[in-house]
Amino acid sequence: MQMPEPREDILARKDRIVSRLREVLPADAVIDDGIELKAYECDALSAYRCPPMCAVLPTSTAEVSAVMKICHAEGVPVVPRGSGTSLAGGALPTADSVILGVARLADVLEVDYANRFIRVEAGRTNLSVTGAVEADGFFYAPDPSSQLACAIAGNIAMNSGGAHCLKYGVTTNNLMGVKMVMADGEVIEIGGAHLDAGGLDLLGLVCGSEGQLGVVTEATLRILAKPEGARPVLIGFDSNVVAGACVSDIIKTGIVPVAIEFMDRPCIEATEAFTGAGYPDCEALLIIEVEGSEAEIDDQLSRIIAIAERHDPVEVRQSASPEQSAKIWLGRKSAFGAMGQINDYMCLDGTIPVSELPHVLGRIGELSDQYGLKVGNVFHAGDGNMHPLILYNANTPGELEKCEAMGADILKLCVEVGGCLTGEHGVGIEKRDLMGVQYTPEDLDMQMAVKDVFDPGWILNPAKVFPLDVSAARRG
Amino acid sequence: MQMPEPREDILARKDRIVSRLREVLPADAVIDDGIELKAYECDALSAYRCPPMCAVLPTSTAEVSAVMKICHAEGVPVVPRGSGTSLAGGALPTADSVILGVARLADVLEVDYANRFIRVEAGRTNLSVTGAVEADGFFYAPDPSSQLACAIAGNIAMNSGGAHCLKYGVTTNNLMGVKMVMADGEVIEIGGAHLDAGGLDLLGLVCGSEGQLGVVTEATLRILAKPEGARPVLIGFDSNVVAGACVSDIIKTGIVPVAIEFMDRPCIEATEAFTGAGYPDCEALLIIEVEGSEAEIDDQLSRIIAIAERHDPVEVRQSASPEQSAKIWLGRKSAFGAMGQINDYMCLDGTIPVSELPHVLGRIGELSDQYGLKVGNVFHAGDGNMHPLILYNANTPGELEKCEAMGADILKLCVEVGGCLTGEHGVGIEKRDLMGVQYTPEDLDMQMAVKDVFDPGWILNPAKVFPLDVSAARRG
Repeated sequence: MQMPEPREDILARKDRIVSRLREVLPADAVIDDGIELKAYECDALSAYRCPPMCAVLPTSTAEVSAVMKICHAEGVPVVPRGSGTSLAGGALPTADSVILGVARLADVLEVDYANRFIRVEAGRTNLSVTGAVEADGFFYAPDPSSQLACAIAGNIAMNSGGAHCLKYGVTTNNLMGVKMVMADGEVIEIGGAHLDAGGLDLLGLVCGSEGQLGVVTEATLRILAKPEGARPVLIGFDSNVVAGACVSDIIKTGIVPVAIEFMDRPCIEATEAFTGAGYPDCEALLIIEVEGSEAEIDDQLSRIIAIAERHDPVEVRQSASPEQSAKIWLGRKSAFGAMGQINDYMCLDGTIPVSELPHVLGRIGELSDQYGLKVGNVFHAGDGNMHPLILYNANTPGELEKCEAMGADILKLCVEVGGCLTGEHGVGIEKRDLMGVQYTPEDLDMQMAVKDVFDPGWILNPAKVFPLDVSAARRG
Repeated sequence: MQMPEPREDILARKDRIVSRLREVLPADAVIDDGIELKAYECDALSAYRCPPMCAVLPTSTAEVSAVMKICHAEGVPVVPRGSGTSLAGGALPTADSVILGVARLADVLEVDYANRFIRVEAGRTNLSVTGAVEADGFFYAPDPSSQLACAIAGNIAMNSGGAHCLKYGVTTNNLMGVKMVMADGEVIEIGGAHLDAGGLDLLGLVCGSEGQLGVVTEATLRILAKPEGARPVLIGFDSNVVAGACVSDIIKTGIVPVAIEFMDRPCIEATEAFTGAGYPDCEALLIIEVEGSEAEIDDQLSRIIAIAERHDPVEVRQSASPEQSAKIWLGRKSAFGAMGQINDYMCLDGTIPVSELPHVLGRIGELSDQYGLKVGNVFHAGDGNMHPLILYNANTPGELEKCEAMGADILKLCVEVGGCLTGEHGVGIEKRDLMGVQYTPEDLDMQMAVKDVFDPGWILNPAKVFPLDVSAARRG
């Protein structure tokens, strides 16, 4: 992965920049020691690493603003960072950049049930947002797999989804407002505890903008009342393609389960070894969860099972207790960890029209044979958000490159069938050079012109989202 | 309402411009006859009128592109128009502009149940989108009161809502993609039949942009399966403030009905005279509708009624049949027409946090006394989207101005309590000069800079959204 050359003039001013940052931040909030900086040299896309010039951990919006003012004045690139769980390298530093971590901004600022929102500092973890309201019967819907660790700031940057987003929508559908520090340190508010906005929808624009437009320090989030109950069913099939066709048929009827999750044999086997969840011996399985009253759950599940029966399932496993439900979910929730135990893998993230699932799963199988690399599929099938895991050995020379080439082919396939390069992980560094597959030069130029408005000096989250060659002129 | 002076150099070129337009459009698609142009001199905010230079009614995206190329080359302002139902003057012409009506672009292009979308030309009416899929058990959720007439193009421009948006979200939550003709005639596509987008969320930006960024000619819309059943309850109260408090208490429990509609005495009396719906004699009433299976409906309604009982309702009227349900909705659905029969009125549109309903309703009553103008309130209470109707007599000199002043005070109040100038009608011409109440000069400057990217010559939908004095420098 090509990275821009660090700017020597910035590195030469490192001491001055660090000491200016120390003037506006608490003593322990500026890190420039090489060993300590190791923690910030990569995110969850750990195949790519680069130590930053320094890292700062401000504790308030005012401190974030002070940092941005200094970096703006000095022309220093800033890489905003939530919890560093990005799978697309969204928080990968450059050598001449300041990592701006928001993890210490983690307070709950306001809970308002009458208006169904919670206002939090953006470094708060996703799961602890629900944690702040669940005793009162509420929850925050988007649930990335990394929700124990990932920050709301990162969720907003990447417009994150999760298993339950089929019903509740992704981050952009649950975000009501932000407080954001601009590239020049100015603090603005967009949206709030009300519907709609006058003029242009800048909130929609900020959500998913991958730290290119500003540093979000507070978020107003929609909270929802917990449903009365929820219950999963596990259905096994003897081929990926048939399981994909079943998903397409369920969606076609208009039923919207809370979740439709898909796992294929490599993932099933890995999670069995890891968790002993007792999954059936089959090529592919679906976990489908529905919500509501007992009567409603029974009704929806019976309609879903009737559809599945037409696809000759190997097994239909209904849950009769909360324990059985937990066991059905156990393997799925451990899938990424289980795969990581036995292999290096690259987790892709693309979206496709649901009706293309059988075709795309078939093609991924063919690409796997062609490249000689195994693939595990575990993903949110209901909304067509695929996560093929390409398995490789990081110690075999050339295998990472082969894996990258195969990943690019799969993402091109997603675009080819009418889908999109990304689902919930963002473009980051990973898919930067594939943007030209999805967009024309004119499209990219317009996106970059919008960035110009917010960040004329292009100091925010450098080297991400836009191919380096097309953004070069703007970076100056 | 101040409008910019028409540019004499454009008017002097009228013959040439019209004949250039005739070269690229069918014979009946260019209107420059004074009498025929009357139909285009205003939209539903009929207090303001101005005949355009001419109007065009293209029948394809290619023709829209050809029109934009000519207007771009000639520097002629273009006012995109759907069905002309805007209550904010969103389609009000200037004297030197071309009205670009998309009403002849009304075809269904694609229906895809497996991927739950419909692709239509943007001039298609809202209700006929549902009409195209309802035989198969599907519907398109956003339902503006004007849905029989209003076009999807206008719904996208204004990010329209409707009674049922409390549960299903507004247009931006149901829009998956657009085809759009840019100011220079270039045709682009944004989004599509898949989740998410790579890079910046331009789709979110376009939705609600009031024709400032381009002319939308096609839309890909999310469709949903019809619920098993739905049932309303009508609850009467002896004060606006108490009815508002009841709404706030319902929302607070986390129940999300499909609709919570509010009407006060002036509206109740007007609709009674108009429809004979048999509404109770009370100060304010709520119509609350829930959906699902019979069991689920019973459960939700019983919880809602238990909350209402704590507010000493004058009457709780449950429905025991589809006929009774229709009668409960009859008055609400006729409310705007009924008010129009007995009075001139100005329909406002602001949103507030739901918990502020009692306070804001009380203050509107005080403002009504202060200005000596009656107000009827009929609105989507569940999501805090208020529609005060200020009643006035258009034939009494000075009364329109008094009405405008009172409207401005009410919208300022909405912003003051943490709400927003608009809900679903947009800013248009109506609220243009109030944008400074919601936004700082820096905020407006940024919004205008984003417009610059899409429409550098500022030819699209002139004199709307941004106060004339702040946009003057950009209009050149």
